[in-house]
Amino acid sequence: MSIRNEDKASILIEALPYIQKYHEKTIVIKYGGNAMLSDELRDAVISDIVLLSLTGINVVLVHGGGPDMNDLLKKIGKKSEFINGLRYTDEETAEVALMVLAGKTNKQLVDKIGRTGGRAIGLCGLDGGLIKATRHTDAEGTDYGFVGDIVSINAKVIEDVIHRGYIPVISTVAHAEDASGVYNINADTAAAEIAVALKAENLILLTDTVGVLRDPKDPSTLISEICTDEVDGLRAEGVISGGMIPKVECCVSAVNGGVKTFIIDGRIKHSILIEMLSEEGIGTMFTKA
Amino acid sequence: MSIRNEDKASILIEALPYIQKYHEKTIVIKYGGNAMLSDELRDAVISDIVLLSLTGINVVLVHGGGPDMNDLLKKIGKKSEFINGLRYTDEETAEVALMVLAGKTNKQLVDKIGRTGGRAIGLCGLDGGLIKATRHTDAEGTDYGFVGDIVSINAKVIEDVIHRGYIPVISTVAHAEDASGVYNINADTAAAEIAVALKAENLILLTDTVGVLRDPKDPSTLISEICTDEVDGLRAEGVISGGMIPKVECCVSAVNGGVKTFIIDGRIKHSILIEMLSEEGIGTMFTKA
Amino acid sequence: MSIRNEDKASILIEALPYIQKYHEKTIVIKYGGNAMLSDELRDAVISDIVLLSLTGINVVLVHGGGPDMNDLLKKIGKKSEFINGLRYTDEETAEVALMVLAGKTNKQLVDKIGRTGGRAIGLCGLDGGLIKATRHTDAEGTDYGFVGDIVSINAKVIEDVIHRGYIPVISTVAHAEDASGVYNINADTAAAEIAVALKAENLILLTDTVGVLRDPKDPSTLISEICTDEVDGLRAEGVISGGMIPKVECCVSAVNGGVKTFIIDGRIKHSILIEMLSEEGIGTMFTKA
Amino acid sequence: MSIRNEDKASILIEALPYIQKYHEKTIVIKYGGNAMLSDELRDAVISDIVLLSLTGINVVLVHGGGPDMNDLLKKIGKKSEFINGLRYTDEETAEVALMVLAGKTNKQLVDKIGRTGGRAIGLCGLDGGLIKATRHTDAEGTDYGFVGDIVSINAKVIEDVIHRGYIPVISTVAHAEDASGVYNINADTAAAEIAVALKAENLILLTDTVGVLRDPKDPSTLISEICTDEVDGLRAEGVISGGMIPKVECCVSAVNGGVKTFIIDGRIKHSILIEMLSEEGIGTMFTKA
Amino acid sequence: MSIRNEDKASILIEALPYIQKYHEKTIVIKYGGNAMLSDELRDAVISDIVLLSLTGINVVLVHGGGPDMNDLLKKIGKKSEFINGLRYTDEETAEVALMVLAGKTNKQLVDKIGRTGGRAIGLCGLDGGLIKATRHTDAEGTDYGFVGDIVSINAKVIEDVIHRGYIPVISTVAHAEDASGVYNINADTAAAEIAVALKAENLILLTDTVGVLRDPKDPSTLISEICTDEVDGLRAEGVISGGMIPKVECCVSAVNGGVKTFIIDGRIKHSILIEMLSEEGIGTMFTKA
Amino acid sequence: MSIRNEDKASILIEALPYIQKYHEKTIVIKYGGNAMLSDELRDAVISDIVLLSLTGINVVLVHGGGPDMNDLLKKIGKKSEFINGLRYTDEETAEVALMVLAGKTNKQLVDKIGRTGGRAIGLCGLDGGLIKATRHTDAEGTDYGFVGDIVSINAKVIEDVIHRGYIPVISTVAHAEDASGVYNINADTAAAEIAVALKAENLILLTDTVGVLRDPKDPSTLISEICTDEVDGLRAEGVISGGMIPKVECCVSAVNGGVKTFIIDGRIKHSILIEMLSEEGIGTMFTKA
Repeated sequence: MSIRNEDKASILIEALPYIQKYHEKTIVIKYGGNAMLSDELRDAVISDIVLLSLTGINVVLVHGGGPDMNDLLKKIGKKSEFINGLRYTDEETAEVALMVLAGKTNKQLVDKIGRTGGRAIGLCGLDGGLIKATRHTDAEGTDYGFVGDIVSINAKVIEDVIHRGYIPVISTVAHAEDASGVYNINADTAAAEIAVALKAENLILLTDTVGVLRDPKDPSTLISEICTDEVDGLRAEGVISGGMIPKVECCVSAVNGGVKTFIIDGRIKHSILIEMLSEEGIGTMFTKA
Repeated sequence: MSIRNEDKASILIEALPYIQKYHEKTIVIKYGGNAMLSDELRDAVISDIVLLSLTGINVVLVHGGGPDMNDLLKKIGKKSEFINGLRYTDEETAEVALMVLAGKTNKQLVDKIGRTGGRAIGLCGLDGGLIKATRHTDAEGTDYGFVGDIVSINAKVIEDVIHRGYIPVISTVAHAEDASGVYNINADTAAAEIAVALKAENLILLTDTVGVLRDPKDPSTLISEICTDEVDGLRAEGVISGGMIPKVECCVSAVNGGVKTFIIDGRIKHSILIEMLSEEGIGTMFTKA
Repeated sequence: MSIRNEDKASILIEALPYIQKYHEKTIVIKYGGNAMLSDELRDAVISDIVLLSLTGINVVLVHGGGPDMNDLLKKIGKKSEFINGLRYTDEETAEVALMVLAGKTNKQLVDKIGRTGGRAIGLCGLDGGLIKATRHTDAEGTDYGFVGDIVSINAKVIEDVIHRGYIPVISTVAHAEDASGVYNINADTAAAEIAVALKAENLILLTDTVGVLRDPKDPSTLISEICTDEVDGLRAEGVISGGMIPKVECCVSAVNGGVKTFIIDGRIKHSILIEMLSEEGIGTMFTKA
Repeated sequence: MSIRNEDKASILIEALPYIQKYHEKTIVIKYGGNAMLSDELRDAVISDIVLLSLTGINVVLVHGGGPDMNDLLKKIGKKSEFINGLRYTDEETAEVALMVLAGKTNKQLVDKIGRTGGRAIGLCGLDGGLIKATRHTDAEGTDYGFVGDIVSINAKVIEDVIHRGYIPVISTVAHAEDASGVYNINADTAAAEIAVALKAENLILLTDTVGVLRDPKDPSTLISEICTDEVDGLRAEGVISGGMIPKVECCVSAVNGGVKTFIIDGRIKHSILIEMLSEEGIGTMFTKA
Repeated sequence: MSIRNEDKASILIEALPYIQKYHEKTIVIKYGGNAMLSDELRDAVISDIVLLSLTGINVVLVHGGGPDMNDLLKKIGKKSEFINGLRYTDEETAEVALMVLAGKTNKQLVDKIGRTGGRAIGLCGLDGGLIKATRHTDAEGTDYGFVGDIVSINAKVIEDVIHRGYIPVISTVAHAEDASGVYNINADTAAAEIAVALKAENLILLTDTVGVLRDPKDPSTLISEICTDEVDGLRAEGVISGGMIPKVECCVSAVNGGVKTFIIDGRIKHSILIEMLSEEGIGTMFTKA
Repeated sequence: MSIRNEDKASILIEALPYIQKYHEKTIVIKYGGNAMLSDELRDAVISDIVLLSLTGINVVLVHGGGPDMNDLLKKIGKKSEFINGLRYTDEETAEVALMVLAGKTNKQLVDKIGRTGGRAIGLCGLDGGLIKATRHTDAEGTDYGFVGDIVSINAKVIEDVIHRGYIPVISTVAHAEDASGVYNINADTAAAEIAVALKAENLILLTDTVGVLRDPKDPSTLISEICTDEVDGLRAEGVISGGMIPKVECCVSAVNGGVKTFIIDGRIKHSILIEMLSEEGIGTMFTKA
């Protein structure tokens, strides 16, 4: 890029009103999908987070497992059983989740933030009793193994970490209230509940889509704002369908808990900064009815 | 400018290492000259200051009077007497300085910062005994009237204001230790002494020059770094001469007090941001021998 | 005076119950009129304030402009236009107000407090967004120029200054919410609103009268206490009339905001101390119905 | 007294420079002798202390036992044995000292301060390990029973009490390091050591004399200032003699510990206020050589 | 005892859930009776208190006078007059109470705690206005002299002492609101009111009984829990009678104020620890209806 | 056990002087070996830690990996290569270490502490830049792969966690200063360096031996105290040999850093409590020459 210094400065200045808007606010970012796979995208996400953190925003990073999980399951020769399209999580798989999520993915993100000039502490749901859960059941009472439903979020642990100047990086393995092991928790759901517990300003879900599209094949049909009372209609029309359904449910629950929520495209470099520090905004924003 | 969002984000990210470097450091900016005259330049300076402040830098703004002073002297029909090229400051002129500097210029800057989204408190040397001075005399004992030499800086007043989250904006009128009135103080000198008293990281003097030039007519001959032990030589050569001499003396005294000091071009929009948040750097930097 | 040491000590001790009563309470003093003109009276007012401050009372000083304003207007040859008996404030006059009030009067009071052994910081309505105002209009929609009605008081700025151990000295020029300049604000009104915003214990208005008199020519007819529900009757009777009307309106609004309010005679030396630290009390006290 | 309000105010204002001088400083007052016997004098001492405390001075009151001690000894029919003019303190007498000093005298002073509008907490050397002592011996190894020499002062206990806003009132019974009981400690000595441990500004000893007199029969021969290096000479001359010797030794040790020390006349009403808040000063001041 | 180290450790670990339960809670212990008389029992009580204090429990010790009071009355040859079985407290007796309780008993307990490794400050109702009382009267208006009924407890004084890390030891002599002297207060009543004012978790009354017994001669008939609504019935049955009546009234009033209350046997060594840190519990617990 | 309540209480009281001694001190415990394998021993270790933590001791737990590491390596079919008896750590093995140590072992300990009533946060060397390391080399320059030598310990991260009331549980994987991955660090070495960085009072190494034995086959030959200057002699004699050598080196380095160090038998239940809270002490204590 051959942009003049003065123009560069103007671009920094353009961000000023957005930096002011989010100053000392808490933003929860759910990090997963392609943005975790590509080195370039990961570097961009981490840079975005460190920059936001330095401008006085309390960034909380909640992450999924990405492909690390499958890698280890494959290495140990574990075959997964599926029930209603969901992986059955036996005790060994739950332990793999703990190792991969809280050990590898989490600590590598923490280290990456450190190498980019930020200060992070990695937490999972076991630290300070952060996430407590009981065994998940659906309406039919199907058993999915060590998959948990959140019972409580102990926001104080996260706030203690923020208060001391660190970026909390959270993997969503939970303390089992009704058993001796750990439960695996859906990261989108956990991010939404954490955002509500922290009274966060925004929840940003990094996904592998442009946002909610009227025509899934045509990115130009992006719906840039959805009010929670429009969601049922959009599901009936089939606009919200498949893997988008649980994501939108998370968004609705976060919005109902008082948090503005965004689904943005993690495949675009610096999509977090673009969403937060420029006028345009990308992706789909969910707002209260 | 038709710069893509992604490129804008990259430019923000480029600033990251500089934001990290200055995080929670104190920077004193001496504001004067053309940068005060043009509305566009003033807007840019104020934006720069508010942005730096939001990224966790403690910015202290020390200002001169610009043309406001002459305007009021002219309006009241006051003719100025000059001695050795310096204006003789009689009691009425000292009072005009107080009104213009601490009343108009200072409070308008404070208000401008407020309108740009920052929070400032305007101080002069009288507030909390911030600057105490005695009557200035040169070697020949010439009397310049109510012009003062700094006796002490009470850094605590400025720190109290910073500590409560405000940008201190300082006009350089001082408490007279040896008289009942007020003294007018050279703003460059005051900025240098304030920077030293605050143990500031940097002192930036906004001037109407590119910096120290080997050939004053050729901006391409800018000397980008001067070590304090080179100063005498450069004066002997005539490279540092005229109005640049007192400015350089301030720089030397600040550097000797432990503060890295810069003379930069206030006529360039966002020159503060460019100096602080980009690799290039503009103007002349003074460093310790 | 030839008072024995022991009697002097007894007089100090007499003040004890009053010092206890106001300990750690906030008192707003509106300073104006003759008490600003005479050097002797000014010295007494400043001494009173410093003494009260040292006995653990949070004193907030709100001042008008006194004759400084007219002096400068005269010097620059500005003729004032009057509408309904009120001076029309054009932009130049507003700027003169800013210079005189926030520059000269304010900072000279700050310096005087410093010379008397106190520590003060001078503020105007622009500092930290302390006073925000919109253009004043009366029922007929008359335009008085840059005269403002208070929209909000940001008590936190004053509290920050108190908290750090300084006496706040406030000039009543305000940030214009609906324009780019500054508004001049009536100092009595501002003092009353500041007292309410600070949840002050007392508001003391220093005036050039003994207080509210039944017979304006006879000081012995002083009404020492007026309940707010008596005010309408006293206006109907003509007891409260002329320049006393707006003053009493300020008192009523402060009392309604929970602040005990006093009109006392600024022409009596140490009238503040006498009112606050002795049994007698002078002037007129306003109390809630 | 028929002193006009304005004159009363002037007297308050005269105290201003002294109040400023001692603001936030610590003053230890040793209270004993006649000032404890007369109700009128005791009321004056307590008022003085409460007033000084309200003006931001940290007053620490160290008291002796006065006649309460003899009263109880007499009541229980205890005869005192004297060695070298000092009372032999057997275990029963030590217990009487504990009861009278820490129980009656101390708590009655605390209550008196409360009734005068102050807030006090009564301490003795046992509280928080405030004063630790071992058995006193003189050069000849005489046994005086439960009389102690101070080993350590735990200043933190007193500072904790001051920090929470209370006036510490201290009776000088000490924890016995080398025994199971308590030791009685000379109150002048304890006051001096406490003043040094607290890095106090002043130590004031209330006595039943005008101060050190050249001619003990002629109050007009008061020596108003004694430098510690003059003491030996004055003892040789016999000017300092008898009961004044141990008092002066306390003063010298306090002065050597960095505390300005005064012997003043407790028989004069409000002698503390007169000494501290007026120009004259009464009694004898001890200063460093 | 020849208990193996490992068994000792197990016993410590058994206390873990109880230590957790009371962590950072406030416990008021009323100390009196035989537990004060025997050296061995006193040592045990003090050890218990210091241990609880070190495990993060805020222990407040309220004590009666034990036999010290009678000793001194006897020594001074004071004969006590009794009205309705209660000792008439004339002024001299009230003063004896002050000396014995606040001077001897209190400070000796403070010293004992210090010697056992704790840090205590001794208070009585006069310190900081801790207990204010008026003259006690019964329904018939009988005069018992300087016996007081509690009007107010200033919990802040106790909290200040706790906050600074000391164990408050309190003797129950009170400031007389309606007179100039002091009142003697029943220690059980004071302990109950202090517990309520501090929002304590527990109140423990150390007594010379096993607890409330169905058959006073048979310790095996201990009632281990009494609900406040059972008290009237138990009085009617004569189970609660004699000296137990006022004790139970204190318990009921503490329970009604939100404090769980226990009557335990002070004659058993370490009964406090046994009650608080083991499963069994001893004595009678009072709980809310 | 049939131990009477009173005896249990006495055992608690016996611990009092030790609890006092360590109050508010920091103790680093290196946890590994058999004490990690047996459920019963692990429960005892965790109980000991929670109990010590509740008595106001800042416990820091540093753990090794135990058999979890081998389990996963075996599961993924990884064969280990050994050089000079040390396992060569390739990148995959380093990642396994990260997953097992920071993911499984660490978080399970954290959860166990939570279930026992404590509050813990799990950290590894990556969190907040806690442990920074470079590639380990020995004198011969052998390459052991991703094995690191500690370059720095950032004690502040641990202190932040302690300050907020959590027990830090630390796995010894480090940030690679000279590479992009992570280094595995010897846990004994890390514990020693952490203890020194924290200025800890004690370092306790839980091992699978009784301590240093003169005759390794005879536990009765335990050396209960070794001064650092005796170590060379004991090595020469062969008393310190084999796996004990590096452990003793850690002890010497901790002692040199000012930390009293203990090797105790992790196979004995509650050996930590026995060492810390009883007179006997078990194992070998290392002290300064």
